[in-house]
Amino acid sequence: MVIALLLIVASNPSRAGFEPLPAEVPAPAENPTTREKVALGRKLFFDRRISAGGRYSCFTCHDTLTSGDDHLALAVTPSGRVSHRNVPTVFNAAFLSTQFWYGDAATLEEQAEGPLSEMGGGDAEEVVRRVRAIPGYGREFSRAFPGAELTLKTLTQAIASYERTLITRGDAFDRFLSGETGALSASAQRGMSSFEKIGCIQCHSGPLLAGPHLPAGEGFYRKFPIHTDNVFIEKYHLSDDPGRFAATGVESDRGFWKVPQLRNIALTAPYFHNGSVATLDEAVRVMAKTQLGRDLSAADASDLVEFLKSLSGRPPRQEIPRLPPLN
Amino acid sequence: MVIALLLIVASNPSRAGFEPLPAEVPAPAENPTTREKVALGRKLFFDRRISAGGRYSCFTCHDTLTSGDDHLALAVTPSGRVSHRNVPTVFNAAFLSTQFWYGDAATLEEQAEGPLSEMGGGDAEEVVRRVRAIPGYGREFSRAFPGAELTLKTLTQAIASYERTLITRGDAFDRFLSGETGALSASAQRGMSSFEKIGCIQCHSGPLLAGPHLPAGEGFYRKFPIHTDNVFIEKYHLSDDPGRFAATGVESDRGFWKVPQLRNIALTAPYFHNGSVATLDEAVRVMAKTQLGRDLSAADASDLVEFLKSLSGRPPRQEIPRLPPLN
Repeated sequence: MVIALLLIVASNPSRAGFEPLPAEVPAPAENPTTREKVALGRKLFFDRRISAGGRYSCFTCHDTLTSGDDHLALAVTPSGRVSHRNVPTVFNAAFLSTQFWYGDAATLEEQAEGPLSEMGGGDAEEVVRRVRAIPGYGREFSRAFPGAELTLKTLTQAIASYERTLITRGDAFDRFLSGETGALSASAQRGMSSFEKIGCIQCHSGPLLAGPHLPAGEGFYRKFPIHTDNVFIEKYHLSDDPGRFAATGVESDRGFWKVPQLRNIALTAPYFHNGSVATLDEAVRVMAKTQLGRDLSAADASDLVEFLKSLSGRPPRQEIPRLPPLN
Repeated sequence: MVIALLLIVASNPSRAGFEPLPAEVPAPAENPTTREKVALGRKLFFDRRISAGGRYSCFTCHDTLTSGDDHLALAVTPSGRVSHRNVPTVFNAAFLSTQFWYGDAATLEEQAEGPLSEMGGGDAEEVVRRVRAIPGYGREFSRAFPGAELTLKTLTQAIASYERTLITRGDAFDRFLSGETGALSASAQRGMSSFEKIGCIQCHSGPLLAGPHLPAGEGFYRKFPIHTDNVFIEKYHLSDDPGRFAATGVESDRGFWKVPQLRNIALTAPYFHNGSVATLDEAVRVMAKTQLGRDLSAADASDLVEFLKSLSGRPPRQEIPRLPPLN
C-alpha cells in the first residue's frame, strides 16, 4: 500500500497551481484560427517592407528562431528610439488574457496595433497602405477573410492567428507534470518545491506561471516591488516606473504590473520590465527579496533556476515563408 | 521541313550569351559543401545575437524571404551608419566569380568577413567570440568541421556553404531556354531580342547575366557610366564614385565596376551601386543611355522590363532554423 501510494504521487506530481500548457489555443469568437489566416499572418509577421523605412517587422523584436523576444534590455522602436520596456516573448502569449507589461491590450489583435502603429511612423494605417501596395497580399486576404477587406482589423487578425501557433511544447516541466518523473533533475524538483513553499506560486501559478486562467481582457495584476528596503530597488531602478498607472491614470494602479509568464524564462534574459537584471540567478534573488522579503541561499537560488530552466520548450517547426513580390 | 525547322528553333531558343543557371553550384576545393555546414551556416546567417549590440545578422541585409537584399537604397550598417552602397542580393551570388560592387572578394567566404567585421564593431573576431559563447554551436562546429576549430575561417566557411544553397530556380527565362516557349510573353521575347540587339548582352551575358563564367577571383569589370553627356549622370549621381579604383588605387580601375547580375532584378529595386534609381523602367533607360548612348522608346523599355521580370526565380524551400540557446 505504501509503495502504491508513492507511485501515485510520483506519477501525478501536479499540485495546486502547477498546470501544463493546454492542448487547445484559445481564439476570439470573431477571429477563429484558420490555416489561411495563419499562412498570411506568418508572412506579414516577417515582412519588413510594410514598415515605414522598410527595416522593421514583428520579427525584428520577436525573434522566433530563438526565444520570441529580441535579446536586448530595452526595445528599439522602428523610429530608432530606445524604449523604456523590455520586449516580452511572443511565444505562448496566445494563452495570456492581457498583453503588454501594463496589460492594456485584451487580445493579440489589439496588441498588434501598437507595434504596427510604430512601424507606420505613428500611424498603423500607413502599414495597411503598404500591405495593400503589394499585389500578392490582396489575393491572400481574399482567401483568408472571404468577403472582408484588407483593413487594420483583418491585418491584426491574420498576425494574431499566426501568433496563436507560436506555442512552445514538450518542455521538461510539462513532461514532468504528465508523469515523466525523470524529466526534472533533483535540483529542479527541489526548485519546484521551493517555488511553492516560499510563495512564488502565489502569483506565478497557472499554465504560463503568470497567474490563474482569466477571460480575455481580465488581467492578473500584482504590486511590484512590494518590499523596497533593499539594495535592488535603486540598483535596478525598480521603483522608477509607475506601472499600470501610466496606462490607466488610476491611482490604485500605481506600482502594479501584469504578472509576466515564466515559460521560456531561461531563454529571455535580460529580465524585468526595464531589462535591468542580466541573469536568472540574480532575477530570482531580486524577486525573492522584493516580493517575499526573503534572502535566498545559493543552493535555493540554484534550485529555483534549475526549475525555471525546465520551462524552456520547443517552438513549432515551420517553413521559411516566401513573401509576395513588391510588384 | 519548314515546320520542323521552326520547331527546332522554337525548342532551342538559347542563343550565344544566354545561359540557364547551372545545375551544380561551385564551391572552393578547400570548402566542399556538406549538409552539416549548410545547417550550421543557416543558423549563423539568422543569428543576430552574434553581433555586437545583438541586433544585426546576415539576414538583416539579406532578406531571404523576399529578394535576398534589404529593399533599401543604401545599406544600413550594424553601427547604424548609412552606407554609400546598395546591398546586392545573396541569391545566386554563389555563381559569381567575385563579390561586392568592386569585386574585391574572390569567394563568399572572403565576402562574409566584411559584414562580420561590421557586426563585430570593426572586428570580426568579436563575432567569433560571441559564437563561441553559445554552447550549442560548439557541437555543431565539431560535426561540420571534424578536427577543426571554431575560428573566423570555419565560421565564414559555414555561412558560405549555406549561401551556396540560396539559388533561385525555375524562372520563366530558364524554362524558356529549356524549350518551354510559352514561358515568355511576346513582350518578354521582344525584350530578349532587344537585349541582344542593342547590346545589353555584351556585358550582361552568362548564366547570371553578369558576364562570362570566370574562375573564382577573376572579375568581369566594365566602365560605368561610359556616356556622360546626359541628364541621368547628375540626377542619379552616377559619376560621384570612383568604383573599383577605391578598392585597388589603380588609376585604370577608375570608374570601373563589376558587372552585377540581373537574376531577380525585378525584385531588387532600387537600382545601381548607390540605389538612386527607383524603378526598373527608369533603370533600363539609364543603362541604355549611359552605356549604349541610346534613347529607348516606351515600347522598347517596356519589353526589356518584361524580359527582366522573367529572371525572377523561386528561392529554395527551407525550415525556419532553431538557434541554440544562449546558455
